Amino acid sequence: MSRQRSGLGTNQEGVRRHNLGTLLRHVHRAGAMSRADLTLQMGLNRSTIAGLVAELESLGVTERALPAHPRTGAGRPSAGVGLSQSGPFVIAVDLGVDRVVVARVGLGGNIQNRAIATIVDGREAWQVGGTVAALIRKVVADAPENAPLVGIGISVPGLVRRSDGLIRLAPNLEWHDVSFGSIVLAALGVDVPVLVANDADLGALSEHFRGAGVGIDDLIYVSGNVGVGAGVITGGFRLEGADGYAGEIGHLSFNPSGHPCHCGNRGCWETEVGAHAIAKAIGYPDDQVAQLGEVLEGFRDPTAELRGIGTQLGHGLASIVNAFNPRVVVLGGYFRELFRLVRTDVNDALAERALPAPLESVTLTLPGLGADSVLLGAAEIALEPLFVDPVAGLGTAITSVGTKLAG
Amino acid sequence: MSRQRSGLGTNQEGVRRHNLGTLLRHVHRAGAMSRADLTLQMGLNRSTIAGLVAELESLGVTERALPAHPRTGAGRPSAGVGLSQSGPFVIAVDLGVDRVVVARVGLGGNIQNRAIATIVDGREAWQVGGTVAALIRKVVADAPENAPLVGIGISVPGLVRRSDGLIRLAPNLEWHDVSFGSIVLAALGVDVPVLVANDADLGALSEHFRGAGVGIDDLIYVSGNVGVGAGVITGGFRLEGADGYAGEIGHLSFNPSGHPCHCGNRGCWETEVGAHAIAKAIGYPDDQVAQLGEVLEGFRDPTAELRGIGTQLGHGLASIVNAFNPRVVVLGGYFRELFRLVRTDVNDALAERALPAPLESVTLTLPGLGADSVLLGAAEIALEPLFVDPVAGLGTAITSVGTKLAG
Ligand SMILES: [Zn+2]
Ligand SMILES: [Zn+2]
Repeated sequence: MSRQRSGLGTNQEGVRRHNLGTLLRHVHRAGAMSRADLTLQMGLNRSTIAGLVAELESLGVTERALPAHPRTGAGRPSAGVGLSQSGPFVIAVDLGVDRVVVARVGLGGNIQNRAIATIVDGREAWQVGGTVAALIRKVVADAPENAPLVGIGISVPGLVRRSDGLIRLAPNLEWHDVSFGSIVLAALGVDVPVLVANDADLGALSEHFRGAGVGIDDLIYVSGNVGVGAGVITGGFRLEGADGYAGEIGHLSFNPSGHPCHCGNRGCWETEVGAHAIAKAIGYPDDQVAQLGEVLEGFRDPTAELRGIGTQLGHGLASIVNAFNPRVVVLGGYFRELFRLVRTDVNDALAERALPAPLESVTLTLPGLGADSVLLGAAEIALEPLFVDPVAGLGTAITSVGTKLAG
Repeated sequence: MSRQRSGLGTNQEGVRRHNLGTLLRHVHRAGAMSRADLTLQMGLNRSTIAGLVAELESLGVTERALPAHPRTGAGRPSAGVGLSQSGPFVIAVDLGVDRVVVARVGLGGNIQNRAIATIVDGREAWQVGGTVAALIRKVVADAPENAPLVGIGISVPGLVRRSDGLIRLAPNLEWHDVSFGSIVLAALGVDVPVLVANDADLGALSEHFRGAGVGIDDLIYVSGNVGVGAGVITGGFRLEGADGYAGEIGHLSFNPSGHPCHCGNRGCWETEVGAHAIAKAIGYPDDQVAQLGEVLEGFRDPTAELRGIGTQLGHGLASIVNAFNPRVVVLGGYFRELFRLVRTDVNDALAERALPAPLESVTLTLPGLGADSVLLGAAEIALEPLFVDPVAGLGTAITSVGTKLAG
């Protein structure tokens, strides 16, 4: 009898932690919510919700707040559940081929501090790891003393093995089989959960959660940087493939008489539309491609060459629309600026090449999160343990981060 | 109190029907099974299994049989549960561009009778519907009098809307927005559930259930006929896309200076590797492409041109491997014979173009179900209602089919 009770107790504790995480996930996604809305959305009774809220407050994760979307005409808005901004945070790393962005991100995807550095061509992974560690030290320096660091999420422009986060290949960094998460931890000299994922996959994730793809179950985020890749959400789930490598659309064979590609082939789609092709089209020096975003921002009248890139972008997107039948395609990276400049050319080329049936239900769009989709996706994967089990997630976190990392 | 009981009763009946269907699905997939194995696999107790088996027998769906895979060393094999071959059946229709195959298929994917007809170029959908109806009459003529026809599953080489089975486009038949299921029912003069789906999707389904992809969660079936398409299973589920059109890899932009494609573009992959390209490579008349399978079967020494098609097949498959990261790619349609002839060229071209990480875990293979993958997939979707709820599935079935359709 006592064993049965103990078993039941353990199970109830598991259910409770699951509910704690789910409640936190709701507030993380939607912003401050009333208890009434939480009661409705979670299908639990008011006293259970009250108990969960009290526990999350005592964990320092939530605090009382006015609901972000109070119901109109419902009288004085009742106190709701908001996210503690002096509470847990994560480090998000968006590693590009030419620059790296590091941010301290709180619950709700709130970017509290950020730092950026250029990556010099040909840098080894351990050197870049040192740069990332320095940026992390910078962004945590003024973090609240008691705020726990839950984990580090790292985005990389390459193929990441799902099982262990190993970077199998980052073609434009020329990295092979790099355990970059471990490198960053070693440079920091601390032990905290670290997760590595593909940039486009993370862009898709955050755009689906809080960007242009909220409520859309079939969404593709196309990351247009030096390399080109896609994160695919299908039926509400990420398309991973057998090992987590799915979405390498930059290396679709596109033009048998095209340019050589970093991957060793010729005429891959990214050779026609990636940053180097864009730079060439606007006569910009190939070795300063890291500034391409700002340069494109300053552009007003697209040249015929840039419009040609728009056409190649649309043609490639047609292949993607035919292959995946998405509802929304989010154009990230340099494609944000390119699309702004040559939107008509892209849409015309897509319409010319895509099959009519998948074409009629697809929309090309800009990221709802601007330039931060990938960075916020990296934050999402690092925050995820808190939504599975906040007690366990805080258990592996570290506090006094500013002090601990200062040395 | 009595309302509560009635509610509970309804729920129990729902659970019971679900269990009936699940048990039947197990036997349908694995062949005759012992009650002990069913008890183990379904996690139900022996008396519940016995009750379910008794009900399925009384429904005429299963019968006593020796298990297909009796455990060795376990003494005399106990009586198990087998599928009744005088029980329910479905009609499976595999509609190609140049020929149509119709089969009567029983539980377990057992093809009981089949008939085939050529489709003359330019035939309208209602004419083809008449041909299909005539073939259906032929294959049901000798069906057991009491065996119920559960439904009709139809495979088409085109884009099928998931919501209602409308053929939005079958490019090589030049059909637009054709409600082919309704056309076949009208030609038959009966009302029975009819389901329409894309050929490659059905190939993927049956290869996953009982062919080369059993136990493989990331699988692509590539259908190589006049048109080329893919059915993609990812993480154990079909990749459908927003409306069910995903997998149109035949229309990946592949060669900007290539041949015109039926879809209106130029240089789509299927123009390089589809039946017409294969026919040209072996100097076979383009208007007799329906016999291409037999012709290729007779081939022994591949010409340089045919090896070139093998290379283009491998290059396109590299794009597919990069985009989807499958564990297994099943080559169906004319690609079965082509792959047999130029396997080395296909594998070499794949290895040349695919990224190393997804390449190392993928295998190209022939269909486990030979030429019948798509046909058996069409049978699967028609049988599916029996596995959801056998009582309801038999409720919409019709008996005395031979007599009813004879007029
Ligand atoms: Zn490439
Ligand atoms: Zn085409």
